[in-house]
Amino acid sequence: MKSPPWPKGKKLVHLDLKGAPPRLEYLLKLIELFSKLGVDGLLVEYEDMFPYDGDLKLLQATAQPPYSREEVLSMQEFAKSKGMEVIPLVQTFGHMEVSRTSGLELVLLAISATFSVGVQHHCLLFTAQCPSSVTVRAEASTHVEPERDGAVCEHPESPPNRRGEAGDGDAEVYMLGEGEESKLWLASPGRTVEQLFLSHVTKVAQAIKEAWPDMTIIMWDDMMRGMSQDTLKASGLVVLVQPMLWDYTPNLDVDTTVSLLEKYCRAGMSDLWAASSFKGSTSVHTCVPSTQRHVDNHVQWLKVAAALSAAVNLQGIAITGWQRYDHLSVLCELMHVGLPSLAACLQTLSLGEFSPEAQSKVAETLGISSVEAEAMGRTTEDESLFPGRRLAELTVELNSLLNSEDIRFFENNMYVRGWFSSYHQQRKMVSPLIAMQIQSQASAYLTALQEKVEALREEMVLLYPESTAQEWIVEHVSPVLAPLQRITEDITACVNEMVPSNILPAHNQTASFE
Amino acid sequence: MKSPPWPKGKKLVHLDLKGAPPRLEYLLKLIELFSKLGVDGLLVEYEDMFPYDGDLKLLQATAQPPYSREEVLSMQEFAKSKGMEVIPLVQTFGHMEVSRTSGLELVLLAISATFSVGVQHHCLLFTAQCPSSVTVRAEASTHVEPERDGAVCEHPESPPNRRGEAGDGDAEVYMLGEGEESKLWLASPGRTVEQLFLSHVTKVAQAIKEAWPDMTIIMWDDMMRGMSQDTLKASGLVVLVQPMLWDYTPNLDVDTTVSLLEKYCRAGMSDLWAASSFKGSTSVHTCVPSTQRHVDNHVQWLKVAAALSAAVNLQGIAITGWQRYDHLSVLCELMHVGLPSLAACLQTLSLGEFSPEAQSKVAETLGISSVEAEAMGRTTEDESLFPGRRLAELTVELNSLLNSEDIRFFENNMYVRGWFSSYHQQRKMVSPLIAMQIQSQASAYLTALQEKVEALREEMVLLYPESTAQEWIVEHVSPVLAPLQRITEDITACVNEMVPSNILPAHNQTASFE
Repeated sequence: MKSPPWPKGKKLVHLDLKGAPPRLEYLLKLIELFSKLGVDGLLVEYEDMFPYDGDLKLLQATAQPPYSREEVLSMQEFAKSKGMEVIPLVQTFGHMEVSRTSGLELVLLAISATFSVGVQHHCLLFTAQCPSSVTVRAEASTHVEPERDGAVCEHPESPPNRRGEAGDGDAEVYMLGEGEESKLWLASPGRTVEQLFLSHVTKVAQAIKEAWPDMTIIMWDDMMRGMSQDTLKASGLVVLVQPMLWDYTPNLDVDTTVSLLEKYCRAGMSDLWAASSFKGSTSVHTCVPSTQRHVDNHVQWLKVAAALSAAVNLQGIAITGWQRYDHLSVLCELMHVGLPSLAACLQTLSLGEFSPEAQSKVAETLGISSVEAEAMGRTTEDESLFPGRRLAELTVELNSLLNSEDIRFFENNMYVRGWFSSYHQQRKMVSPLIAMQIQSQASAYLTALQEKVEALREEMVLLYPESTAQEWIVEHVSPVLAPLQRITEDITACVNEMVPSNILPAHNQTASFE
Repeated sequence: MKSPPWPKGKKLVHLDLKGAPPRLEYLLKLIELFSKLGVDGLLVEYEDMFPYDGDLKLLQATAQPPYSREEVLSMQEFAKSKGMEVIPLVQTFGHMEVSRTSGLELVLLAISATFSVGVQHHCLLFTAQCPSSVTVRAEASTHVEPERDGAVCEHPESPPNRRGEAGDGDAEVYMLGEGEESKLWLASPGRTVEQLFLSHVTKVAQAIKEAWPDMTIIMWDDMMRGMSQDTLKASGLVVLVQPMLWDYTPNLDVDTTVSLLEKYCRAGMSDLWAASSFKGSTSVHTCVPSTQRHVDNHVQWLKVAAALSAAVNLQGIAITGWQRYDHLSVLCELMHVGLPSLAACLQTLSLGEFSPEAQSKVAETLGISSVEAEAMGRTTEDESLFPGRRLAELTVELNSLLNSEDIRFFENNMYVRGWFSSYHQQRKMVSPLIAMQIQSQASAYLTALQEKVEALREEMVLLYPESTAQEWIVEHVSPVLAPLQRITEDITACVNEMVPSNILPAHNQTASFE
């Protein structure tokens, strides 16, 4: 079913630099492509890749050097030359993994530092997931739960992996009121956790407005979802911020989302933003995004936009593309492999649907034959249409090997479970033929993986820092290589202790037993 | 669709003693139950549990003492007192894992030894999967492939685990002709691998007939399946043996099976046997049989029996129940947990179908509420209706834990893959909350497993040797425990190297940062 195209406001692409930061040259190619795809602005999450000065240097990445001041400026200027606005995304309290021992002062300094570089004019986006500034500082050094919980509940849509989850949005609020200082604050009559949250966020927003009066503050909405219109209105926050409602799921509930946006509007926040996703929201360790999944997310957002009342003033949509869920998690779908999905999502917003024609358009624009990265192929050798295509191809190929059941669960195959158990290893009572067969299969898998990994590494270091290539491989390849290596070593050890003549066929042995 | 009941001949139950040999007391209870269920005879695979004398002692099991001569006699006499015939199943060349360095002389001696104990009157069943005796002996010490391949191709129906299989029946025959002596034999004009096989088997059968003229020889049919009626007829074997056609699959092809039996009949072997299965044929590491799967196998066999011409003289059916696929593989579904399936299969043979009434009858006979071991429950505390029921219950419960994805693939859950990768471990850059949550979950699983394992061990040693309990646990539990233990150790190590105050919530810490 076709919806009207995305009605108005900016289409921002999220540049998550807190993992796998593209080399400047690649970054500029990406911005060029974004421009070609109709993007109006960038939502840049510098994080530890920002060229901080002085005391703030301790916020910088240690695995690789951060961007230089010149690089940041040239990226911003290049984007502006393409007519794009650049909006920094600054973590203030949630997701403060990288600076969680730094305290609030550092955080606010970080905000200033970010703004001193270039983007003086427009927006600051922050996650506000903490109670009063006093309490948060005590909690930042004593409780790490809120941050960790935030990392989980921000991506609630990963059903195959939801097992055993410890916290969600509610738990987070609960814990936020659990610090000693929060408890003291809450002990006074009439005070609620909601007020604790709102009073803190309002103070922070006021401080920002005092420093930068013309700045628009956008904030993630999630902590306000359960609050009543009256509570929100009474907080004073509504005149200070524009909420950005995020939902990255393919089955986003349209009615609920519309109701939430209308509630924010009635509470006094009629300038509203949407946040969708083109990658980095499937599961914490997914390496290749499904285009369909993300197109579906945008189709739902189009339905939301079409159903909003005229009172809602939609400011735009941020198409997020996380490189990792948080600083302490593995790298997920990286930018190069998310471009088909991004192009497809933008095309969907423009046309109101993802028709076969829209698919052909996307494929043609990128020079590929399918919009799904898993099956994209290529229709041209010219890589300029799709910067990073070769690496995307290698990522898809390696990912497919890594996730094949035969390889990932090699230790659980019937030969290993049936004939090379710990019992047989301990007793050196191993069927030589089956042991050789297991070893030969494991070695073949190891070789195939290692060859693909080397090709990927060579290509990845052209677009990302060497540390990124190394990290990606240790995170995604090592867990699969390890059991294969372990088993080939175990078999070798076992076979060496068994009688050699029993192990290998000796076709030229003709001894007679008669 | 209902078939006629199993037409005639004996219904034998296979007692596989080459793994988890029941203690004598339990064995007698089992025989008592078999009798109650309408079994006419036992097909006993003594293997390394036989009380061999003299040189043959080296064929005996080392993990536990074999049965004593008195135990074997008392088992045989008890069965006879219940009107059952006892037929030994003796491996001659295939599946000679236990004695593969012993040479042919020992094998023939083993046959004599088996017969000297008691069963003088009737049958010998052997697997014949080798070429001439001369060649087989050379190959027995140089090639182990035929035996290993035999182990695989004898259980061709395990599709989820068929990946990467190296050999099948054809490969086996191929390899059997590959030994140096076989090649010499085959080099003479007009000689084929089929003749090589037939000439050997015929010689062995003749030798047995000379020693025990009244003995009926039954042999597995698989090596004869591809041979023409004329080839079989010309071999001279047809007057010496009764083929036993085995098929353990739930989707046994009726037409093919009927054709094979009719071919054997026309070739001169009108006395024929069927071999079905009630357990031990699903996959090499399956621990709990599906009753439905094995009932389906028997439903197919009923259709075969109903479709045979009058010329075929069906001698009976052996309902096999393997304790392991071969001497070098893990224990699979053991007798105690296979009894609901066995009772259901026998009831199916008696009634021609497995109707709801038949199911009720089986459940009532065993004192359980479902015929599926996985869901059997109990309707009485009286265990005498179902000897080993308590152990069966524990096996089902533990098996369910061991095969839950959350436990078996714990290292692949999103928290471990996402936040506790090798990369994070190496850098001691681990989210404390998630690490604690992983550890707590892993510990809970470890505790649950260990408690269940101890309960199972206590019960298992009452019915089987202690070595069997130990073997079962090392084979089926250790591979699941190991990663859980590894991860809790890794987390402990990692956490110990991180700053202690960051790790655990310190709720009483009230230091102010203002």
